[in-house]
Order: sequence, then C-alpha cells, then structure tokens
Amino acid sequence: MKNKFYKYIENLQNTITSKLEEVDGLATFKEDIWVREEGGGGKTRVIENGAIFEKGGVNISSVYGELPEVLRKQFGVKEGNFFACGLSLVLHPINPFVPTVHANWRYFEMYNSQGEIVTQWFGGGQDLTPYYLFDEDAVHFHQTCKTACDKHHSDFYPKFKKTCDDYFWNSHRNEARGIGGLFFDYLKETEDFSMENRYDFVTEIGNSFLNSYVPIVEKRKGISYTSAQKDWQEIRRGRYVEFNLVHDKGTLFGLKTNGRIESILMSLPPKVQWKYDHHPEENSEEAKLIKVLKNPKSWV
Amino acid sequence: MKNKFYKYIENLQNTITSKLEEVDGLATFKEDIWVREEGGGGKTRVIENGAIFEKGGVNISSVYGELPEVLRKQFGVKEGNFFACGLSLVLHPINPFVPTVHANWRYFEMYNSQGEIVTQWFGGGQDLTPYYLFDEDAVHFHQTCKTACDKHHSDFYPKFKKTCDDYFWNSHRNEARGIGGLFFDYLKETEDFSMENRYDFVTEIGNSFLNSYVPIVEKRKGISYTSAQKDWQEIRRGRYVEFNLVHDKGTLFGLKTNGRIESILMSLPPKVQWKYDHHPEENSEEAKLIKVLKNPKSWV
Repeated sequence: MKNKFYKYIENLQNTITSKLEEVDGLATFKEDIWVREEGGGGKTRVIENGAIFEKGGVNISSVYGELPEVLRKQFGVKEGNFFACGLSLVLHPINPFVPTVHANWRYFEMYNSQGEIVTQWFGGGQDLTPYYLFDEDAVHFHQTCKTACDKHHSDFYPKFKKTCDDYFWNSHRNEARGIGGLFFDYLKETEDFSMENRYDFVTEIGNSFLNSYVPIVEKRKGISYTSAQKDWQEIRRGRYVEFNLVHDKGTLFGLKTNGRIESILMSLPPKVQWKYDHHPEENSEEAKLIKVLKNPKSWV
Repeated sequence: MKNKFYKYIENLQNTITSKLEEVDGLATFKEDIWVREEGGGGKTRVIENGAIFEKGGVNISSVYGELPEVLRKQFGVKEGNFFACGLSLVLHPINPFVPTVHANWRYFEMYNSQGEIVTQWFGGGQDLTPYYLFDEDAVHFHQTCKTACDKHHSDFYPKFKKTCDDYFWNSHRNEARGIGGLFFDYLKETEDFSMENRYDFVTEIGNSFLNSYVPIVEKRKGISYTSAQKDWQEIRRGRYVEFNLVHDKGTLFGLKTNGRIESILMSLPPKVQWKYDHHPEENSEEAKLIKVLKNPKSWV
C-alpha cells in the first residue's frame, strides 16, 4: 500500500503542477529535493510571482524511521517505527477575487518491533478560502467534493464537511479560516471498508482536486480589483497565518519535530497585513464574507 | 502593591505615549478602553501610519477574578483568585534602519479562599529587533539595560540578558528573534530582596525604556533606504510573527483564554512578507545580522 500510494502522489504532483503551470501561463514550479536525516525526504515544488499565482507550493514527502517522541506520546506507545507519505498544496493567487486553496492527502503506517504493520490509515482533505464570496463558486467546490464522496458512501460528504468546518476554526477570532470542503483522518480498515476501499476513496478525492478549483480560477482571474480590495485580501491572509501558526496541528507538528521548515511554511502567504481592529463596513461584500465565516453554511 | 504598581504603569503609559508622539511628529495614539467580562479591563493605545512608526501599541491592563483553568493547572492549585496588571508595548518603525522594540512589565498576585495573598511576583523585560545591525545601537540598548540593572544587583544584567536570549529564540529557525535585552519572571520576595526592592528594580527598568530606545530612533530615522531593504525588513517581520504566534507564551495564553484579541495582536507588524527559502547574499549587511541572531553575543 505504501508504495502504491507514494506512486500515486508522485503522479498527482506532476499532474497538478503541469495543469497549474498551464493555468498560470507565466511562472513555473521550482523543485527542491530534500533528504530527512532520520529517513526519507521530499520533493518541494514552489511557484512564485506568476501571472495568476502570487505564491504556492505542491509538495510531496515520504518519511520513515523511529517514531518521534511527540507521536509516541500521542499514540501511547513506548517505541515503534513509522512510515508516512503525503501531498500538500497551498495556492495564494494575486487577484483577491480568486480564492486561496489548500489540500492534503496522506498515508501513515506504524510497525511493531518485528516490523509488522500494527496500524495504518489515510487522512486529508481540501478547503477553500475566498476573500470575496461568490455563492456559485462555493457551491461548485462543495459539489465537486460531494460528488467524489458520494461514489463511496453517502455519509462521507456530510461527515467530512462538518469535520472540516470544525477543524479550520480560528477559535481566537470565532470564525472559520475559509468556507471549508472536506477533512478526514484515521481512515482505517473497518468491517465496511478495506484499506483498498480507503485508497480508492482518497485517490478519488485527489483526482477531483483540479476540477474543484481550476474552473473557479478561470472564472475569476480576469476581474479587475482596487488597491483597497487587495488590502482586504492581505488582511484576510493574516487570519490564514494565524490559523496555520496557532492552530494547525500539521504545521506545529512539523515545526516542533525538526521538519523541513521551508516546505512546511510554503503555506504562508507572500504579502500579509495586520491592521489594528479592522472591521469591514456594514453590508459590504467584505462583511458578507465574514458573516458566512462566523456561521459556516451548507452549500449543497 | 497592586495599586501602587498599577498607578505606576498608568503614568508610564502616559509618559511613553507622549514622548513617542513627539518623536513621530505626525500620528497620535488612538485609545480604546475595554472591559473584561470576568473582571478588570485595559487601556489600549495604538499608533498607525505615523512619520516614524508604521504601527505600534502601548497597552496597559489590570485583570482579576477566578484563576483561569490554564493557570490553575500551571500553578497546581484547585481554585483561587488572582490579580494581574502590566504594560506591554511593541513599536514597528517604517524605516528598516530603525529597529523594532518590545517591552513588558507586569505584576501578579494570587489569593487563597480567605482572600489573602499566597504569592506575588513581578516579571517583564525589553528587547530590540533590528533589521540592519549597528553595533553601537546594540551596545547603547544593552548598556542602558545594564546600568539600570546594576543599580540593584550586579548579577541581574548577565542573568536577565541570558534569560532574554533563551526566551526569544525561534527554535524552528535556530535563530534569535532579535538581539535581546532583558527578560525576567517570578521576581518574588527572597531573603535578599523585599517586594519593595522588586518594585524599585522593575520601575527602574521601566523608567529606562525611553532612554534605551529613543536615541536609536533619532539617530537612524533619516537614513534613506531602497525597496529591497524594505522587503528585507518585511521578510524579517515574518520571523517576528512566527515567534509571537508559535512560541510566545504571553500571546498564546491570551489567545487561548479569551483575552482581548486586538490588544494582544497589536504586536503583529503592519506589512509582512514570506518568500520561499529566502537567504541573504553572503557577506551582505543582511547576512551579518543573521550571523549575530544565530549566535547571540555579549554587547557590554
């Protein structure tokens, strides 16, 4: 399974970066291959200063070895080896009418002292962070997620949509990071689902990513915007930073376990503003966004 | 003691904001008075878009009531009431040759069920974050700190200077946030020092603040700078954000215990950049700064 899924994300990274380069039309992804001292490594691909994408990364990594202490504590085991691989992407477009998107699909195995798998699971999801809200874009993104989920189980979309709303919650602001999508973790083998079923599900979601996002980019990339609208985007990007550095478990785990910092922090936006006590004008487009972020809604 | 120290920080806030308005010459501090539901409140004073200061805050607060759960856990007590007051300031100048400064002086009391003080202490410090390093500015800042410390005990400066270097350490980058200054906490009554002695020491440090910082502002505010130097400042400000959101105990405590978010996050810089895997050119002025941040040095 681990080789099969790694092969999958390797191909998916190629597919996604090729398509995004085509969409951008100006910048290309720069690849950095890195090695993890304790075992494994990754391929980080970053795009900057494009025609569409101000900054973004589509990274894969595959790491293994002894369980780091944080994970031993978390899983309540004294020792053990692990394998983890995944693809993570974040795209920050220039145009404030084009949303930021994040996605991640990952696989984890843990072994006993005989090297046998004791547990294995998939995790991941994808979520959208608009700066201006177009209901039809939100519906398109969620509908694409739902269609992919529904091929596997009708419970999946409502369950993983809710998990996503709960997870990407900036509790200190009492608002969501964005308008959500899917988030799932610890997808293990059960009576109803084999690991093969899990693989089919996660790869279905991964395969749906470009369809969920690219049509929105194409639709909004040409809208002209003012510097005040760009300021608003940069202020909202500040909330994105706050979530990633204060609440995001993956980011904090990476920062505290000697992960490759630049690959982890590629998720941070290129230009960000913090203004003191900023509030949008009542009934403005900006206020409309905040209203939805404070009360996540059902889109499909 | 609590009334005396609160009176002190109230006056100090006035002294500092008056002087900084005079230095800035354009912008003035905007005051927000806020109330804490569970007891107490604060006076937040923020300056934005000045001639010298791009953004800054000089805040005081005085809060009391039942110990929040986080503090009960930390102090290992089942119940209890507390009082805490302090002044916090952060200044982000426009000119990359003028350093950012942070300072905080605070006092804490904890009570038993009879309302008697069971423990009380002072804490605080001040530290400097330059974007370009002028050795003489670093020496001036540290010398001012040392002179104030030496009036109370010759051990204080070396001890609190080291605590500062250790505390403001961006461990995930393996570099200091800035060039340090002083940091001290849990200054309680001991055989050698009464609470009155502690009060005299902390207020001596507070009184030395303007002398430690303003001469540096005056000296560097007129240096002309390029947009590349401004970019460098904004990239370094990103490291400031990383420290405050990932490592700073005070910030995280505030965010996780329902503090007044806008008063806490006034510390974040106004405009920030994150570039992927950015490194200054070898032997440049930018590289010279990084070298010192990776190996904090003795300035006096």
